Amino acid sequence: MVHINEHYLKLESRYLFSQIAEKTREYQNANPDKRIIRFGIGDTTQPLPPSIIKAFHVGVEEMGVASSYKGYGPEQGYLFLRELISTHDYKARGADISPNEIFISDGAKCDTGNILDIFGKNTVAITNPAYPVYVDTNVMAGTTGKLLANGQYEGLVYLSANESNEFCPTPPSEHLDIIYLCSPNNPTGVSFTKKQLKEWVDYALKHNSILFFDAAYERYIQDSSIPHSIYEIPNAKQVAIEFRSFSKTAGFTGTRCAFTVVPLELKGFDNRGNSVSIHQLWNRRHSTKFNGVSYPVQCAAAAIYAQQGKEEVNGLIEYYRYNAELIKDTLQKIGFRFWGGKNSPYIWVKTPQNLTSWQFFDYLLSNLQIVITPGVGFGSAGENFFRITSFGLHEDTQLAVKRMLSWNWHHKI
Amino acid sequence: MVHINEHYLKLESRYLFSQIAEKTREYQNANPDKRIIRFGIGDTTQPLPPSIIKAFHVGVEEMGVASSYKGYGPEQGYLFLRELISTHDYKARGADISPNEIFISDGAKCDTGNILDIFGKNTVAITNPAYPVYVDTNVMAGTTGKLLANGQYEGLVYLSANESNEFCPTPPSEHLDIIYLCSPNNPTGVSFTKKQLKEWVDYALKHNSILFFDAAYERYIQDSSIPHSIYEIPNAKQVAIEFRSFSKTAGFTGTRCAFTVVPLELKGFDNRGNSVSIHQLWNRRHSTKFNGVSYPVQCAAAAIYAQQGKEEVNGLIEYYRYNAELIKDTLQKIGFRFWGGKNSPYIWVKTPQNLTSWQFFDYLLSNLQIVITPGVGFGSAGENFFRITSFGLHEDTQLAVKRMLSWNWHHKI
Repeated sequence: MVHINEHYLKLESRYLFSQIAEKTREYQNANPDKRIIRFGIGDTTQPLPPSIIKAFHVGVEEMGVASSYKGYGPEQGYLFLRELISTHDYKARGADISPNEIFISDGAKCDTGNILDIFGKNTVAITNPAYPVYVDTNVMAGTTGKLLANGQYEGLVYLSANESNEFCPTPPSEHLDIIYLCSPNNPTGVSFTKKQLKEWVDYALKHNSILFFDAAYERYIQDSSIPHSIYEIPNAKQVAIEFRSFSKTAGFTGTRCAFTVVPLELKGFDNRGNSVSIHQLWNRRHSTKFNGVSYPVQCAAAAIYAQQGKEEVNGLIEYYRYNAELIKDTLQKIGFRFWGGKNSPYIWVKTPQNLTSWQFFDYLLSNLQIVITPGVGFGSAGENFFRITSFGLHEDTQLAVKRMLSWNWHHKI
Repeated sequence: MVHINEHYLKLESRYLFSQIAEKTREYQNANPDKRIIRFGIGDTTQPLPPSIIKAFHVGVEEMGVASSYKGYGPEQGYLFLRELISTHDYKARGADISPNEIFISDGAKCDTGNILDIFGKNTVAITNPAYPVYVDTNVMAGTTGKLLANGQYEGLVYLSANESNEFCPTPPSEHLDIIYLCSPNNPTGVSFTKKQLKEWVDYALKHNSILFFDAAYERYIQDSSIPHSIYEIPNAKQVAIEFRSFSKTAGFTGTRCAFTVVPLELKGFDNRGNSVSIHQLWNRRHSTKFNGVSYPVQCAAAAIYAQQGKEEVNGLIEYYRYNAELIKDTLQKIGFRFWGGKNSPYIWVKTPQNLTSWQFFDYLLSNLQIVITPGVGFGSAGENFFRITSFGLHEDTQLAVKRMLSWNWHHKI
């Protein structure tokens, strides 16, 4: 008799995004003539820019010629890409990250889940609200107990991100081993300042904790005072793993390329209190359970660091920023309270008239045919909020905005 | 203080292939003028065929145009690819596998490791010798105790594959929960017959066991009596997960695409003895900790099922088969005993004069400048054997063969 991993049985049966898709489908089936505008899932809509496509083609071409054909590549990724990342994403910002601390992978979602493989039993904290994968992968790994009536898992520490702390929780007095921080944040769209991040790094140094820093949206930062990497904070290399992705940077959601930084000096501890290199553990995990990213995809990713690639990626970011500005402007006009959308592709909005997240989801879908993401899907502290993404097409965003501006929000909903 | 996964500390510190690489490097440094021929790692050398390259380019092109751009794809893979696999790899062989039982992934190595995520504590058996990843991922997952002096891990069941059973172990009398079977086998090159596989399926049906069937090398089967899939055996859908890969089928080692079949009727059990769908668990794991394979890569993989692609893939297989024939012929002439090489890219050879695997590795490297894989690297039962791969270039294989034929094997080594 084969035993399953019991922890999977604790998982909530309905996944946020499948629930949104189901409700949207039901509405569309009942109203086939209505044009629905989807701001639900955070997926990019703009094609890969020309110089990236060109590099992608060159990589493919090489695979078809004996002299340039590539079999198994390094599991950690090709050095040409790791060197570009080290130079442009880190050293240019004063963060001393070397190529051999960088692990290329097929996705930050995968890495934030897989990283738990190398850890034992720890006190783990997430912010509330947070990206659901942090929670689910901890449930799968056995960090938590059962799901409680309040929507939280027993044994997981929830750091409330709310209006009073401007959605940036500060370190608590209690001891935590592992803390997930996402900045710019999904879903709230706010970012940690240098000062706030320093407080977290200092906390981790004091507590021998490790910060899982998810910087998948760093490319949307405009404000020069906001760090793009946690390694811009002194001594962060001793306490932090950083997750990055090309998905939202350069439209790689369907192309698949990301990377994780595991500094050489990062330490964990075995049961006898001996320190163990986290870098070595991750390298072992990565080379045993992963086999590298497709070579042409790595060629495509490398192209974003060339001058033309940089300019084209700026163009992509500008495209989505136009949407964000339009949405923020509209929300202001109709009197909604919101956060984010400046250094982030996400805008986090308070529901009107104290509606629950799902009440407002239904209201917006049935009256304006706009799909948003209910904030409560990201955790209990997301109740009475919703998330809008700026990843749509201009014409869709313009149409949604028009519908919102012409609606009478003053009547009782 | 962050606790690490203690199980990682049980892992052998030196990985087989890095040890081979190190010894080869040392020899080359000491003898810079010698031309070394590498038959060590099982990596392909022939470029992707023209129609696959063409489909790959088309996929890339689509990513550069707004109307055909693809963001996040289905985590399980695009239906167009899953339908082709269902039709050509399964239904054409009388195996009733539907597209929704197929999960596209970035590698069979990844899947054989990750699959353990969804299982609990079980009695796990591997063959000895076996692909090292089966062992290492079980150590990481905590299936085993410590490494014993005989090179085996406490708590793991080793099924001896040896000359007396022609390297095809039969089911034991004892109870096993999970059994890894690889056919055509890496490293021994032998394949299970239909009758042998039926014995395993019957065993699993009787014991409520699950077979992890690794068929990564099925494309090398010539003999029509050997099953390509375990699902060619009646009722195997109730007891088996099958791992497949495009790596050795079509030269995708650096391109990365594979798939795993998890039948809908496959069941595991929770602690209270309730049955749980393994398919649902894997679907949850796959969609939470994975984000699909790069779209252009899936386009390239699909091309192998078209008429031209099929013929080109046959050409690749023929190329490597030529090497295998040449090597087998040579081994016969010099009087070595060997297995495999007919329905497999691997040839498994007994060392001469009862040398250990590593003694013969050193002997061959220093005298003939040929790198092989020491059999003991695949498990204790691989001692006194070595593996040769047929994945080299024709010219390298010819040169190696020439060196072997002109060597005096009759003197005392």
